[in-house]
Amino acid sequence: MKRTRIGIVGYGNLGRGVEVALQANPDLELVGIFSRRPADQVDTLSPETQVFSMDALDTMHDAIDVLILCGGSATDLPEQGPQLAARYNTVDSFDTHARVPEYFDALDAAAKPQNKTAIMSVGWDPGLFSLQRLLGEAFLPQGETFTFWGRGLSQGHSDAVRRVEGVRAGVQYTIPSEEILARVRAGERPNLAAHERHVRHCYVVLEDGADADEVRTKIQTMPHYFADYQTEVFFIDEETLRRDHSAMPHGGYVFRSGDTGDKHAQVMELRIALGSNPEFTASVLVAYARAAARMHARGWYGAHTVLDVPPGMLSSKAPALLRKELI
Amino acid sequence: MKRTRIGIVGYGNLGRGVEVALQANPDLELVGIFSRRPADQVDTLSPETQVFSMDALDTMHDAIDVLILCGGSATDLPEQGPQLAARYNTVDSFDTHARVPEYFDALDAAAKPQNKTAIMSVGWDPGLFSLQRLLGEAFLPQGETFTFWGRGLSQGHSDAVRRVEGVRAGVQYTIPSEEILARVRAGERPNLAAHERHVRHCYVVLEDGADADEVRTKIQTMPHYFADYQTEVFFIDEETLRRDHSAMPHGGYVFRSGDTGDKHAQVMELRIALGSNPEFTASVLVAYARAAARMHARGWYGAHTVLDVPPGMLSSKAPALLRKELI
Repeated sequence: MKRTRIGIVGYGNLGRGVEVALQANPDLELVGIFSRRPADQVDTLSPETQVFSMDALDTMHDAIDVLILCGGSATDLPEQGPQLAARYNTVDSFDTHARVPEYFDALDAAAKPQNKTAIMSVGWDPGLFSLQRLLGEAFLPQGETFTFWGRGLSQGHSDAVRRVEGVRAGVQYTIPSEEILARVRAGERPNLAAHERHVRHCYVVLEDGADADEVRTKIQTMPHYFADYQTEVFFIDEETLRRDHSAMPHGGYVFRSGDTGDKHAQVMELRIALGSNPEFTASVLVAYARAAARMHARGWYGAHTVLDVPPGMLSSKAPALLRKELI
Repeated sequence: MKRTRIGIVGYGNLGRGVEVALQANPDLELVGIFSRRPADQVDTLSPETQVFSMDALDTMHDAIDVLILCGGSATDLPEQGPQLAARYNTVDSFDTHARVPEYFDALDAAAKPQNKTAIMSVGWDPGLFSLQRLLGEAFLPQGETFTFWGRGLSQGHSDAVRRVEGVRAGVQYTIPSEEILARVRAGERPNLAAHERHVRHCYVVLEDGADADEVRTKIQTMPHYFADYQTEVFFIDEETLRRDHSAMPHGGYVFRSGDTGDKHAQVMELRIALGSNPEFTASVLVAYARAAARMHARGWYGAHTVLDVPPGMLSSKAPALLRKELI
């Protein structure tokens, strides 16, 4: 079997996760990592992994089937995505929900005239959760959808905590309200905003001499980030932070709660509990890279989302085997 | 907008569920019900619903876009499926897992030469659960899949209970073991057979003069159905049976429990809790009927399963709106 040849563009937590995930998918082959950093400053997990400069992408079209773009959604992808989608098949994890339509249009305009296939916004939200919201709506058109995030480490909110005066280090977890979760699970459909469905827990190491009560108040009253939420602040020492809070767990829930016929309640619930957020996202990206190569082979050019991909194309198994084992 | 025109073949609980579900999908239009029974013996939910004989299908090709086949998997579908798939686009809920490959081949051989589109094994298991098993495998290739069924009324096991001497009436519920569910949810991957993951509860109305202990023993020791399971038998009166056990609830769970990288545990869990099993199955069939019409329009002929259908095709919404709302 000819293996599908993958390039990784960008090598942070996500790119590293893709390098790991490829090892679990023997039908895929890692050609190398493309980084803006000099090759000798990129410390790959496997010593065999090759590192190239971004310029190398100008001449490697025949060596790569799909690029997995692991840059950020704020500045990297809006620029890199369309540029690379005009020259390669691509998969990315663009996650700025509000800018999805414009990013889709830019990708589509770049990829389609060049007969390339791009799949965008792959991961768990957007991605798996988008898919689950679609299924819920389609199967239960009379109903409500509820998304909960967490328990998980939030990078943006952790950064906000660390900017507070008197904080030496810290992390923030977003946590679904257990009470609201239980109500939705039981079929209730409460009309609540995100800040009423979630609570926030901060674990903070203080600077020497900082006042704990003052720091707590500053965090709890910070507009946008914490003021609307029920926020708890726990003070810990540096050793505890390193020992208990260096993993990157995350997760969440998508519920669809609807009625059919004469008020028969029907509830669908997807829950994910992730030991490593970037590794799971990377693993989803890798499955969609496989699909991108297949869609390209069928002539499905232009931009796509997870909603456009036949699920069977995500698997390394042949369709007949999937039918036998999974249907 | 031109509505997609649907015919229902067979009018038991499932056909009735499809009639109900179509009312929640204004882009779909019910042409009528096709039944082997005389039209005046088919008591439709809506008085406007037309009833036709099966013979009418010989002349209605131009009036129908998709037939939803609501017959049983034991005898109806193996015969009707290929016959009708040669003349119409079809969707069915074929659920004899072991015979999926041969039924697929028969459908494909019938539909493809006639440029028709057939989607088989639609519902929740097979169907939604097949899809979830696929996603689990694709996203977490190093892991285990666990399917649990229930709490739900099982028709086959209820029939078995009712055949026991001394039983006047009764129903049987299949129930996942709470203990095993909790272990799997926590990331454990126990190697257990279906009878170790589920228990069975029977609610029985005795014949006058029947011996309760004897009936209990006969049920609990019945081979294939109950002997391997932890089975509890509860005796109730006819009034209680009618009041508390006439709904058709069901549900279940699909777990994928895997690792990525350096042993980071990742768990995906789909749970469904259905107030009405046939109405939910029908609602899923209706969404796939919409997809069948779209796949046919794209020239995707032959047999398909849920693994071949791009999820976006299940929705009445346009792709751009789906991207804006769900991604």
